Amino acid sequence: MEDQVNGAQAVIRTLVGGGVDVCFANPGTSEMHFVAALDDVPEMRAVLTLFEGVATGAADGYARMSGRPAATLLHLGPGLGNGVANLHNARRALVPVVNVVGDHALAHKRLDAPLESDIDAIAGAVSGWVRRSLATGAVGEDVAEAVAAARVAPGQVATLVLPADVSWTEGAEVAAVPAPRPPAVVPPSVIEEVGGVLDGSTVLFLGGDALTEPGLLAAAQVAAGTGARLIATTFPTRMARGAGVPDVLKLPYPPQAAMAELAGAKHLVLVGAKEPVAFFGYPELPGRLLPPGCAVHVLARPGEDGVGALRSLAERVAPDAEPQLAEPCRPQLPGGRLTPRAMADVVAALLPERAVVVDEAITSGAHLPAATAGSAAHDWLSLTGGAIGWGLPVATGAAVACPDRPVIALQADGSAMYTIQALWTQAREQLDVTTVICDNGVYAILAGELRNVGAGQGGPRAGQLLDLGSPDLDFVALATGMGVPATRATTAEELAEQFAAALAEPGPHLIDAVLVREG
Amino acid sequence: MEDQVNGAQAVIRTLVGGGVDVCFANPGTSEMHFVAALDDVPEMRAVLTLFEGVATGAADGYARMSGRPAATLLHLGPGLGNGVANLHNARRALVPVVNVVGDHALAHKRLDAPLESDIDAIAGAVSGWVRRSLATGAVGEDVAEAVAAARVAPGQVATLVLPADVSWTEGAEVAAVPAPRPPAVVPPSVIEEVGGVLDGSTVLFLGGDALTEPGLLAAAQVAAGTGARLIATTFPTRMARGAGVPDVLKLPYPPQAAMAELAGAKHLVLVGAKEPVAFFGYPELPGRLLPPGCAVHVLARPGEDGVGALRSLAERVAPDAEPQLAEPCRPQLPGGRLTPRAMADVVAALLPERAVVVDEAITSGAHLPAATAGSAAHDWLSLTGGAIGWGLPVATGAAVACPDRPVIALQADGSAMYTIQALWTQAREQLDVTTVICDNGVYAILAGELRNVGAGQGGPRAGQLLDLGSPDLDFVALATGMGVPATRATTAEELAEQFAAALAEPGPHLIDAVLVREG
Repeated sequence: MEDQVNGAQAVIRTLVGGGVDVCFANPGTSEMHFVAALDDVPEMRAVLTLFEGVATGAADGYARMSGRPAATLLHLGPGLGNGVANLHNARRALVPVVNVVGDHALAHKRLDAPLESDIDAIAGAVSGWVRRSLATGAVGEDVAEAVAAARVAPGQVATLVLPADVSWTEGAEVAAVPAPRPPAVVPPSVIEEVGGVLDGSTVLFLGGDALTEPGLLAAAQVAAGTGARLIATTFPTRMARGAGVPDVLKLPYPPQAAMAELAGAKHLVLVGAKEPVAFFGYPELPGRLLPPGCAVHVLARPGEDGVGALRSLAERVAPDAEPQLAEPCRPQLPGGRLTPRAMADVVAALLPERAVVVDEAITSGAHLPAATAGSAAHDWLSLTGGAIGWGLPVATGAAVACPDRPVIALQADGSAMYTIQALWTQAREQLDVTTVICDNGVYAILAGELRNVGAGQGGPRAGQLLDLGSPDLDFVALATGMGVPATRATTAEELAEQFAAALAEPGPHLIDAVLVREG
Repeated sequence: MEDQVNGAQAVIRTLVGGGVDVCFANPGTSEMHFVAALDDVPEMRAVLTLFEGVATGAADGYARMSGRPAATLLHLGPGLGNGVANLHNARRALVPVVNVVGDHALAHKRLDAPLESDIDAIAGAVSGWVRRSLATGAVGEDVAEAVAAARVAPGQVATLVLPADVSWTEGAEVAAVPAPRPPAVVPPSVIEEVGGVLDGSTVLFLGGDALTEPGLLAAAQVAAGTGARLIATTFPTRMARGAGVPDVLKLPYPPQAAMAELAGAKHLVLVGAKEPVAFFGYPELPGRLLPPGCAVHVLARPGEDGVGALRSLAERVAPDAEPQLAEPCRPQLPGGRLTPRAMADVVAALLPERAVVVDEAITSGAHLPAATAGSAAHDWLSLTGGAIGWGLPVATGAAVACPDRPVIALQADGSAMYTIQALWTQAREQLDVTTVICDNGVYAILAGELRNVGAGQGGPRAGQLLDLGSPDLDFVALATGMGVPATRATTAEELAEQFAAALAEPGPHLIDAVLVREG
């Protein structure tokens, strides 16, 4: 009982004791005791964001790079609502996040005050675990269970609703968070079954921990020994890439291209991934992408020990095979027009060692995977849930998690505007993030989707809804307005010069890469 | 059956037929048929926003000023999530809004594709009416019911979930929207009962239509004839003010001040308002604000004919009384230091005729009500639900609704950053909005709330979470980066000059008013 403190202090100390020592925060009145308690617990690093979508996206990026949950601090239902889109992406990334959502004091709930809202309903839509803490005496245990829930492999979003008086009342106790359980080991019978279907008509479909360097090495050993093909999920949570790492194709986004890639497969083996389906339904196209008759096998579910399973498999079917690794190979620095291809070549040519690449380049990023396959080894983070406005916040959180690694955000212009406030947090925390805005002045993916769904080219009024011009966005002004040094590149040479300069300097930088079409 | 069209066309034509001819849109793939159909229905004005919170806030502002719902077009659960905060405010404002939320095609739902989400749960948290349209043949009727639901007096948020294939399939029919029912008339017995309790110990607590000019005139007549006091809700949806309009006090926000204002009341008569409660619960303070023993009477519930009830009441108890009206009275233009009081005086001195004032000034706005009481007659819109990031979007929607009226957004700096993207839509649509950023570099209200909740002054680490400096936000750069001409004012004279110039020119302008503390 020596640890008796108020509720907010117990919350923070329990979080810190459980290894959650970063909190991305947008506090309001209901969270003031949490804020006040920060001065009692210096182990907790609180990072202020100007919008909740930045906080939740940063928690996603932090988890991807640290393997541990960050906390978010959000203000009632509307604050949680602002964070929903990036919590959706985090949910799809299968990463751990602990949301602390402040609420009215218990006695205040029934008064239907202006900020009263159905927090639990919103939380349920994006969380694997939700609890409303109702007593100060139990809040430490509630937090401990939230952290434990977030860390259930591979990770999930856990949301604790924290009434203001549960925070401010004395008599709380700090609780211990149980150590995370290691991922479950895949039984030998499963290894044996999968081992029996590996040949040139088999695809190993890789996600989760199978896309770490050890996972990819084991998978590539299996492929080298059996002829099975490796394909990664279209939007991996985190994927090791570059020179010295097996170069694995990501399943293309367009369903026709994905089906072409999977055509001929008789067996699909899932390793930390789900069966591939189309991102959207389209008229006249199936949602499932596998060819008819293709059998689906599960080597490892998400959260099981996929790396161990791949290693066991390799040992069993290809003990002497050598995985094929990407050779060091960088494109030459291009000159002239700044096309998406030229942008990809600049990034690939200059990508520094151990970079963390945050990829929300959308259509402008088509050439990036091929261009960077032989760049210095790096990690690549993708938009897992399709909710745009993810890249700048995730880069922010990744940089908090990895202060010793350069973070590079490749960011479409339209998507950037959803959470542009992230730049301010990058400036405040002096995070080493280099943002390249892929500035084509249009929601380019929607122009394509307009055709894909059979709506044709669209008329002029439809076109206006896909157009980001009139007025043009000036990302240099937006970035400098939030304290991030910024430049504009209109040629490949300018981009190369500015990108190299940004990488050479610590702290955040933004480059507005004004792209022209290919051709 | 001559009206057979595809689902999306039926949606838009039914909306337009029901008087919903403005749509604030953030479309994605699932909404491409809606977008394509815009070229078939030129009566629908589609306004692109760069973030869904702008779209939903604009719909709120549009409804407050037009009395009619706008539609929003949102992309699945994450897009709706981004709009939640301002839908919460719209819900608290009791205004009509019709959300159209695109979803996956029906057959695609079960595949758990990346953007699959629980739209219905999120929608339920902020809507009075939710439906998922499941058949193209019925989608016209679904839309008609959505519009009718939104228009149920006084107005509510209606959300229609629209699967992509329901949109793209042919065979839909345009449906007719029934005319809105007029508000229910308050029975004579209620008028009589309330008429019996009116004296100097009675407060008429006014919200909704009681705060229109006719409502205020009738209420002021009652007050003049009986000695009853008039108090308005703290955060009215829309309130008529200025010279020639009765000047009615808004109940103060701090609970102690509110209780002091209500002290001595023996009867409280609700007219379009709910019983006043504290915004938040605080240690040692009650949530209900009425003095013990104060009887609560309901003259008109929200959505009933409050103006008619007040007129009947005036006719009954004070047929010959003259309402007291605010005299024309403008402060002199101040000089020197740009304090919140000087800002209020500049705004009050220069406020143009028929201005629409959107007030998210928060702490910096303390002096505005007194200063503007005798300014030219105007309408005042307040943050009904307490979810910040409301002002710039609402100003955008109000300006779309009232192209012939000047819109003035008085906007706190911290709150501005939540939905700063609204400026781009103001530039694109060339809306006549003058935004004054109340730039004090801090979440000032939270510093006060930190004390109010008993957490003291907070230490340095708490202080960092309330501080918007390091780096300072440059609102001039942010605005010009989105195409809105902007200036910075650091003295009262500069603010006056810049405010007058902005009002004199059409189109949007922003003034970064760098405030110093009083004293």
